[in-house]
Amino acid sequence: MALTISHRVQNIAPSLTLQIDARAKEMKAAGLDVIGFGAGEPDFPTPKYICDAAREALDLGLTRYTPAAGTKELRKAICEKLRKDNDMTYTYGDILVSNGAKHSLYTIFQAILDPGDEVLIPTPCWVSYPEMVRMAGGVPVFIPADESTDFIPTNKAIASRVTRRTKAIIITSPSNPNGSVWSREQLQFVADLAVSHPFYVVSDEIYEKLIYDGREHLSIAQLGEQIKAQTFLVNGVSKAYAMTGWRIGYVAGPRHEITAMANFQSQATSNANSIAQYAAMKALQGDQSCVTEMVAEFERRRNAMVEKINEIPGVSCRKPAGAFYIMMNIKQLLGKHFGGRVLESSMDFAELLLAEKQVAVVPGIAFEAEGFCRLSYAISMESCLEGVKRIGEFVDLLT
Amino acid sequence: MALTISHRVQNIAPSLTLQIDARAKEMKAAGLDVIGFGAGEPDFPTPKYICDAAREALDLGLTRYTPAAGTKELRKAICEKLRKDNDMTYTYGDILVSNGAKHSLYTIFQAILDPGDEVLIPTPCWVSYPEMVRMAGGVPVFIPADESTDFIPTNKAIASRVTRRTKAIIITSPSNPNGSVWSREQLQFVADLAVSHPFYVVSDEIYEKLIYDGREHLSIAQLGEQIKAQTFLVNGVSKAYAMTGWRIGYVAGPRHEITAMANFQSQATSNANSIAQYAAMKALQGDQSCVTEMVAEFERRRNAMVEKINEIPGVSCRKPAGAFYIMMNIKQLLGKHFGGRVLESSMDFAELLLAEKQVAVVPGIAFEAEGFCRLSYAISMESCLEGVKRIGEFVDLLT
Repeated sequence: MALTISHRVQNIAPSLTLQIDARAKEMKAAGLDVIGFGAGEPDFPTPKYICDAAREALDLGLTRYTPAAGTKELRKAICEKLRKDNDMTYTYGDILVSNGAKHSLYTIFQAILDPGDEVLIPTPCWVSYPEMVRMAGGVPVFIPADESTDFIPTNKAIASRVTRRTKAIIITSPSNPNGSVWSREQLQFVADLAVSHPFYVVSDEIYEKLIYDGREHLSIAQLGEQIKAQTFLVNGVSKAYAMTGWRIGYVAGPRHEITAMANFQSQATSNANSIAQYAAMKALQGDQSCVTEMVAEFERRRNAMVEKINEIPGVSCRKPAGAFYIMMNIKQLLGKHFGGRVLESSMDFAELLLAEKQVAVVPGIAFEAEGFCRLSYAISMESCLEGVKRIGEFVDLLT
Repeated sequence: MALTISHRVQNIAPSLTLQIDARAKEMKAAGLDVIGFGAGEPDFPTPKYICDAAREALDLGLTRYTPAAGTKELRKAICEKLRKDNDMTYTYGDILVSNGAKHSLYTIFQAILDPGDEVLIPTPCWVSYPEMVRMAGGVPVFIPADESTDFIPTNKAIASRVTRRTKAIIITSPSNPNGSVWSREQLQFVADLAVSHPFYVVSDEIYEKLIYDGREHLSIAQLGEQIKAQTFLVNGVSKAYAMTGWRIGYVAGPRHEITAMANFQSQATSNANSIAQYAAMKALQGDQSCVTEMVAEFERRRNAMVEKINEIPGVSCRKPAGAFYIMMNIKQLLGKHFGGRVLESSMDFAELLLAEKQVAVVPGIAFEAEGFCRLSYAISMESCLEGVKRIGEFVDLLT
């Protein structure tokens, strides 16, 4: 038969964020002074005690296959973390370790979705959620939310999207791309709905540690045994420990489903890197002051960015409670002109800003959030301020 | 709707090899002297220059995201390896680096199979192939081969399985589980068939370096530009450099398909571990004497094992040309008795051998090869000899 790629991969949306990112990198390579607000990872190095743990793993010869679901030691360390940080009881058989939290999420959808099953996704949302749902044959059902509710959908909006085919909802708190943190009451509403329906909850908590203003992280799985039994709690070491390249994510969830996922993973990829598993274990067990210091620096940058952005006429942003992203509202700029061109979308804004001022931002359209751009402050304070200054200069040029 | 796992994961066959393996590990943990012929990885440590490269990567701070398809440097090193070892020209855009060769294979099938597409699989075959094909909605079509043709199916048998729905064939040379190496003529027949039909070739070459008796590895993609353009050449550093735990595999293939796969991987898992990518690059570029030494030791063990197995009445094996596996024929033992039980299958043989003599082998049924057991000689020569001695003692007890 014809040598054609599958419909599955034909249908994967090309990444808008990557287009901008590729152009920014070309410009940087050409020697231009580019400010990149596109980063999705901490700009800090992996803390020394974690790198030392990797060296120790090499000395110990931990270079062989581990169980496909991850070493018992790492899975136990994850249980201990969930007990200590989140007051939840899991045993290691409830844990699956994957090649990054993205891989954990992918495996969850492969394990719970049959063709036509619906997954509720509050928007603005992370780019990979709808793709992952589609890759498993599922149907993403978006629940839009705007700034008036801090980008968190109302209870009414959530309830109105539930159908006979609802198989799961994705909760991301703190959120990428909008930095919002869900309240106990908001989570409780989702938990009650999920239990009574029933449907699964996929709780993406990868930004757990990046939370500001003294707020505390709460997992929906903490709200009772019943909701815990139908929640996939996803987390990893990438964001909290600046370990993005190491690729260690995990999911804690109901035993039967986790076992099925481990079985799937054993045939599809096998274990995550053995040395990184050891380093991740030590990351969770070690002195956590590196996290506190990083969070303090992020909070400082956030405060400065929010203040400076809101000083620019025509753009605005709310102060997000977590993660390291700001959603900048550019709606008032749409319809304005630059160099004979009309700004019709966030993509136009991002393209022109990059070309004119060498500042890279991610257009909101990538997150189902037209009229916004996402700015990451996982770059130095100096770059943050310089970048926002240039945005102000660019906005000044619009007519 | 009901909280149920997907049909996709419900249908994954539980791993027979893991059942035996789990029991062997329990026995070992209980202090018993178990000989494990089940190993699927070299028993050598990762060579020092490669571990040193990982330390260097840590020193260089290579702990961030890399491009989802792998670093340009590693992909270029892979192209250079393919040029040097296999006389083939690829550029780095033709390469996708994944979390192990297993992950490469999984991604290939996701990228080329729509529901109902057929994939030809010569048997005995590696356990994960049929599962991966099914996970992508495909239909495995087995092409059985026996010892009379060195476990390689005849041209006639291959041609007779081709249908309108044939989308690909899997070639594994050297083969897991039977160690066979395909000849140029055998590969040429498949190449001609694939080109004229057309269908893709998935060429799993992970055991490339483990080849004996002075034979040379040949990739089907070397047989001409046309077959190269429809071949996915899969390889990795796991077996050649004793880097199984590091999880670096790759696929070289037609640009359009590789791009689609990279896009898929960017949404499903992102990059493989960044430190391991650097170490893999250095593994490919460094002094290859570690490979030569390892291969010489494997060859020595193979020779001893084959000789000793063929001295046991009622069992036999051919001398495999590659990999580190021996398929031991136990057909003459089926129907015999042990302790009131009849040996009806390779599974019975494996279970009783483990219980009675603490020797773990993998029953052939796991590889669509009933009447055989797979023995890996990726254990010390001493263990090899002791294990075969015990098999002889066990066979003596059968009545």
